[in-house]
Amino acid sequence: MKIGIVGLGLIGGSLAYDFRALGYTVLGVSRQPQACVDAVKLGAVDAASADLASLAPVDVVFICTPVSVIDAIATRLIPHLSSQAILTDVGSVKGSVVKVLTPLWPRFLGGHPMAGSEETGIHAAQSQLFASNPYILTPTAETPPDVIETMTALVDKLGCNLYRCSPTVHDRAVAWISHLPKMTSAALITACLSEADPEIVKLAQSFASSGFRDTSRVGGGNPELGCMMAQYNREELLRSLQQYRQSLDQLTDIIERSDWSSLKALLQQTQTERPKFL
Amino acid sequence: MKIGIVGLGLIGGSLAYDFRALGYTVLGVSRQPQACVDAVKLGAVDAASADLASLAPVDVVFICTPVSVIDAIATRLIPHLSSQAILTDVGSVKGSVVKVLTPLWPRFLGGHPMAGSEETGIHAAQSQLFASNPYILTPTAETPPDVIETMTALVDKLGCNLYRCSPTVHDRAVAWISHLPKMTSAALITACLSEADPEIVKLAQSFASSGFRDTSRVGGGNPELGCMMAQYNREELLRSLQQYRQSLDQLTDIIERSDWSSLKALLQQTQTERPKFL
Repeated sequence: MKIGIVGLGLIGGSLAYDFRALGYTVLGVSRQPQACVDAVKLGAVDAASADLASLAPVDVVFICTPVSVIDAIATRLIPHLSSQAILTDVGSVKGSVVKVLTPLWPRFLGGHPMAGSEETGIHAAQSQLFASNPYILTPTAETPPDVIETMTALVDKLGCNLYRCSPTVHDRAVAWISHLPKMTSAALITACLSEADPEIVKLAQSFASSGFRDTSRVGGGNPELGCMMAQYNREELLRSLQQYRQSLDQLTDIIERSDWSSLKALLQQTQTERPKFL
Repeated sequence: MKIGIVGLGLIGGSLAYDFRALGYTVLGVSRQPQACVDAVKLGAVDAASADLASLAPVDVVFICTPVSVIDAIATRLIPHLSSQAILTDVGSVKGSVVKVLTPLWPRFLGGHPMAGSEETGIHAAQSQLFASNPYILTPTAETPPDVIETMTALVDKLGCNLYRCSPTVHDRAVAWISHLPKMTSAALITACLSEADPEIVKLAQSFASSGFRDTSRVGGGNPELGCMMAQYNREELLRSLQQYRQSLDQLTDIIERSDWSSLKALLQQTQTERPKFL
C-alpha cells in the first residue's frame, strides 16, 4: 500500500515515520521545498515534492495541514487521485471539515489523532507519537464500509486507541476538554490584566506560582490554535461557554451567600470527578 | 533568640528546620502528641509540647495552623506571652486575620510565606522550603517599627524575597493569581459534568489530555483549601470573579460575532502578558 502525506509538519511527519516503519511506501507533499528535502533526508518519507500530482499512485492520502486550508488542498488534490483512493485528514475539528469534504470526495473519512507537542515542523516529528493515544474516526451514514475498514486497520497498526463517533459528537467532546479550557484560561489572564492598580498587578505577577502557571498555560498558548478552535467549532464552543457561565454563576452565588457547606460539596465533587478525565 | 512554632505541619515544621539551622532555639507546640514526638526526633525543634504555656520564654511565635483556628489559638496563647513577644502567622489570607489579631496583641504582624507542596504534616516538612520564594509581611499603621524590623531580618535570613504591603493589597493580589484560578478551574470541571449525553461525557473523559489536566488541576484539588479562600477572602474573591465574568462575556461575545481579528488580538495579548506572571 502507498500512503500520501500532504503537509510535512509535526503531525504529517510523525505519521510518515510510523507508516514507513510499518513497511508502506510514503510519498510526501509540502509547498515548502526545504521541508521536502528535510523529510527525505530524515527518512520520514520515500520521496517528497511540492506537486500534488505526485500523489496519483497512492491508496490513502492524509491531509495534515492546518484546518483552515484543508478544503483548498482537497479541491486541488482530488483531480489527481485514483478513483479508489481514500482521503482523510487530521484536523482537530471535524464537523465543518466533514461537511465540506464529503461532497467533494465520497471516499473521504475524517480523522483526528490526538497527540502533539508544543513544537512544530518536520524536525519536531517523531515515530510513535500517536501510539497509545486516542485516534478518532468520524464516519457518516454515507461513508463506504471499505473506507472505514481500511482506515480502522491503519489506525490499529499505529497502536492508537481507536474511537468512532459522528463529527458532531467529536466536536462536542473536544469542545469540553480542549476548546473550552483554552477560552476559560485566556479569560483568566485578561481578567488579571484588567486590574487597574499597578501595585496589585506587580504583586500578583510576583506571587503567581504553579497554580496560576497551570491554569493559564493553554490560555497563554498559540493564538492561531485558539482562533482555529473558535472559527471551526464555533457552535459547540459557544454551547460549552454558555454552560460554563452557568457553572461559574452558580459557584459565585454560593460564595455570595456564604454557603460554605454547598461550596465544600461542590469542591468535593470536582475533586472526585476530575480523575475520570485523566 | 528563641522562636516558637504553633502547628507542626508542613509550614511550621519547615520554618522550624530553617530557624534551627540558623542557630535559634525552636520550641514547638502541637495538639497532636505524635507530631511533637516526631518533630523532636526529626530534629525540627529543640523541644515540643501540647501546652501553649511552654512558649512563655520565646521572643517570636509563628502560628502555623489552618487560618480557621488562628484566632482561637492566639486567644489561648496570649496570656502566656512575655510583654515584648512578637506574634505572627503564616495564613494565606491576611485581611481577616490581621483585623482579628491586631486588637488582641499589638505586637502582631501578619505574614505569608508563599511556598508549599501537595503534602502535609511534619514528615513533609523540609529545610529551605521558603528560600527564593516570596514572603509577604502585612504591617498596618499601628504595627510597632521594631516588630517590622525583627520580622524583616528573620525573613531575610530565610533567604526569601520579602514583600511588604497592606493586608487588603495582599488579599487582592492573591485573589487574582490563586483564589480566582481555583474557582474558574472548579467551574470548568462542573461545566463538563453538566453534559447530559453520557456518550459525550465518556468520550470527553477519554480525549482529555495535558490541556485539560493543567487547567483543571487546582479546581480538582483540596476542597478545604478552596473553602478557606472563599470564606476568609470572600470580598476580594467575589471582586475578581465579577471581573472574570466580564472577561469571559467579552470573549464569548467576540466568538458569537465571529470577530476573528479581535479574538486573535486578545489571544496574542494573553500570550504576550502571561510570561510576566511566571
